[in-house]
Amino acid sequence: MTGSEHDHGNCHGKCEMDRRTLLAGVAGLAAAPVLGGATLAAAEASDRPLGSVPFTARAYGARSATSGLAPITIERRAVGPRDVLIEILYAGICHSDIHHVREEWRKETYPLVPGHEIVGRIAAIGSEVTKFKVGDIGGVGCMVASCRVCENCIVDREQNCLNGVTLTYASSDKVSGGQTYGGYSERVVVDQHFVIRMPPGADLAAMTPLLCAGITTFSPLQHWKVEPGQRVGVVGLGGLGHVAVKLAVARRAQVTVFTTTPAKVADAQRLGAREAVLWSDAEAMRRVANQFDFIIATVPQAFNAKPFLDALKLDGTLVNVGALAPLEGVDSIAQIMGRKSLAGSQIGGIAETQEVIDFCAARNITADIEMIGVEDINRAYDRVVAKDVRYRFVIDMATLNGGKPARRG
Amino acid sequence: MTGSEHDHGNCHGKCEMDRRTLLAGVAGLAAAPVLGGATLAAAEASDRPLGSVPFTARAYGARSATSGLAPITIERRAVGPRDVLIEILYAGICHSDIHHVREEWRKETYPLVPGHEIVGRIAAIGSEVTKFKVGDIGGVGCMVASCRVCENCIVDREQNCLNGVTLTYASSDKVSGGQTYGGYSERVVVDQHFVIRMPPGADLAAMTPLLCAGITTFSPLQHWKVEPGQRVGVVGLGGLGHVAVKLAVARRAQVTVFTTTPAKVADAQRLGAREAVLWSDAEAMRRVANQFDFIIATVPQAFNAKPFLDALKLDGTLVNVGALAPLEGVDSIAQIMGRKSLAGSQIGGIAETQEVIDFCAARNITADIEMIGVEDINRAYDRVVAKDVRYRFVIDMATLNGGKPARRG
Repeated sequence: MTGSEHDHGNCHGKCEMDRRTLLAGVAGLAAAPVLGGATLAAAEASDRPLGSVPFTARAYGARSATSGLAPITIERRAVGPRDVLIEILYAGICHSDIHHVREEWRKETYPLVPGHEIVGRIAAIGSEVTKFKVGDIGGVGCMVASCRVCENCIVDREQNCLNGVTLTYASSDKVSGGQTYGGYSERVVVDQHFVIRMPPGADLAAMTPLLCAGITTFSPLQHWKVEPGQRVGVVGLGGLGHVAVKLAVARRAQVTVFTTTPAKVADAQRLGAREAVLWSDAEAMRRVANQFDFIIATVPQAFNAKPFLDALKLDGTLVNVGALAPLEGVDSIAQIMGRKSLAGSQIGGIAETQEVIDFCAARNITADIEMIGVEDINRAYDRVVAKDVRYRFVIDMATLNGGKPARRG
Repeated sequence: MTGSEHDHGNCHGKCEMDRRTLLAGVAGLAAAPVLGGATLAAAEASDRPLGSVPFTARAYGARSATSGLAPITIERRAVGPRDVLIEILYAGICHSDIHHVREEWRKETYPLVPGHEIVGRIAAIGSEVTKFKVGDIGGVGCMVASCRVCENCIVDREQNCLNGVTLTYASSDKVSGGQTYGGYSERVVVDQHFVIRMPPGADLAAMTPLLCAGITTFSPLQHWKVEPGQRVGVVGLGGLGHVAVKLAVARRAQVTVFTTTPAKVADAQRLGAREAVLWSDAEAMRRVANQFDFIIATVPQAFNAKPFLDALKLDGTLVNVGALAPLEGVDSIAQIMGRKSLAGSQIGGIAETQEVIDFCAARNITADIEMIGVEDINRAYDRVVAKDVRYRFVIDMATLNGGKPARRG
């Protein structure tokens, strides 16, 4: 069953049940039998608690590459034995959402509901769930399923599942058929393994982007063992880049930001960087040659690698986490002479994602966010592309009910 | 003084003194004062021991990019306090010699005397030399000088000297002016620091190529910590590649050779590889996807990196040691998804060069060589380019005296 059969908003009465009512209504679900095979219509007509059968959920999604995002109704599966039902509080906007929605990376299937930075309250749990209780806060990043038995899964590399990881949205849904729908939605059902424990008392909205931007920048800093005192470069000061700066500063590295936006130089220093360099300035780039142990490039499109390879010290590594396109300037001579590496890195596994959340909670590290309502999503997309965001938009999903986004600060 | 002033073979009488006479003649040199500033003519006319003043040496060199190599006479400096005079026994032919001679990499200055795999007998030592005594065997690789005080030199990375390493040939000679002349010659004077102790009793001719091909393949295996049982790929089975196979097998890695030459498949197995794959065979390359911990590419020209990036396991590294040109197929998506690295690596420092010689001597690892006389150099170059050598030509420098090269095996 695909979401396209249910995208006409035909259940508004039920969906507008307020959140407190929902939480109360499903609190006893864990002990209830989980249904299978019930039709959606039958389920919705019944008086069973939400999640005991497949249910509809309001969302914001795209109907085509050019439609923009608009209200849509999708189906979520019934809560299985190891699943949790999350009432979504916040969803972050990642630049990759825009690439998907606008079909810039590959052919997509519509409707498409983005969102892979998700934080919400556990509203129901399956009978075998041990990781969460109702009322806990859970986070979901880029993945919602994997085989759990292949050689990559068993070493906590679910993102590299040899049988195919299921991404949080626009990915083949092996449980329900069709494709997965992401976090721009009021609710989602996810296997507990793929849900991250969010710390009580944290600034949940500002932690939401850590579920993608955080793990994507934390993982390479861990893997390449960035140490106190090392010179670390961060290319691009956006959603990923500004978190990379904070994480590298937390490791007591000496951080330099490479930006194309003069107005961000002061920001870089506020975030803890010792300096910012405009990488359009060839002379400035020459001055930093051979200085960096490690450079993480967060820009979301192809760039010229040469000035950054040149900026590396002997044995240094330039790791690309954003550009899914061939890089120019991959200079064999610079690499050979200086034993320099060009690497790539994506998100981390679930254990490492929990680690970055715990690391950040212990150090009060969050993303710098601008909270928006669902009606602002299309405008926000344009602003992300125009680099007019400092540094991550987070959607207050309560605004699906027509409210204003929560005020911050 | 440049070699071009002395390339007319005007000292044949003196140069033809046989090697035993030479050794006897200079045995007492260590205690002799070292001259400076004497003109070559005055020196040659004197009865002082060879090396006490600048002297001429016969060599094989190129007068232009198209001349081929022919007899030439060059000048060598007087033996300074920390220098040794080496009577050259063997010089290896590296593919990079051909690139230099034929001006395929950069503009060159002629005459050009190649040769950076050099083994010979110490025939004289300077007053402060402690590392060698007359009669010892010394080896010279790709470098003959560096500043010794910069941050790279003091950590045994002389090849990355911040004040400019002096290469064994075609490099600005900071001691004598002009450019350095390499090992296709009867004698050379080198600072003791840059001379490797060659083990007594070894097969010196077959060890000669280890001074470039050995260190170039040993260093990355060390740096990336290749371990027993790991899957290692070697791209290209030539001078570097066949040594890489032997070194990786000695580390008890499981080695696969990637070759374009079907006739080399059997050779790969003889050298200890578990298999050889023709990398022109796309289907065969697909079968080895995601299998390798480490791949070393030894081919001396640009190649398509994609099939080798695909052949790497998660976190694997493809290291290019041969191609000084931009690689095609540097696939950002494969790198990001699998956290795969593309690196480069050159030779190692002097300490590590000594290490590979000692490592090989302890395990009877040598290069597979074909011994030639100086008159065969031009033909050998053509055969290297045609991949018709198994696997390294070594010049028996005794043939400068008109003899036949020593027979082997």
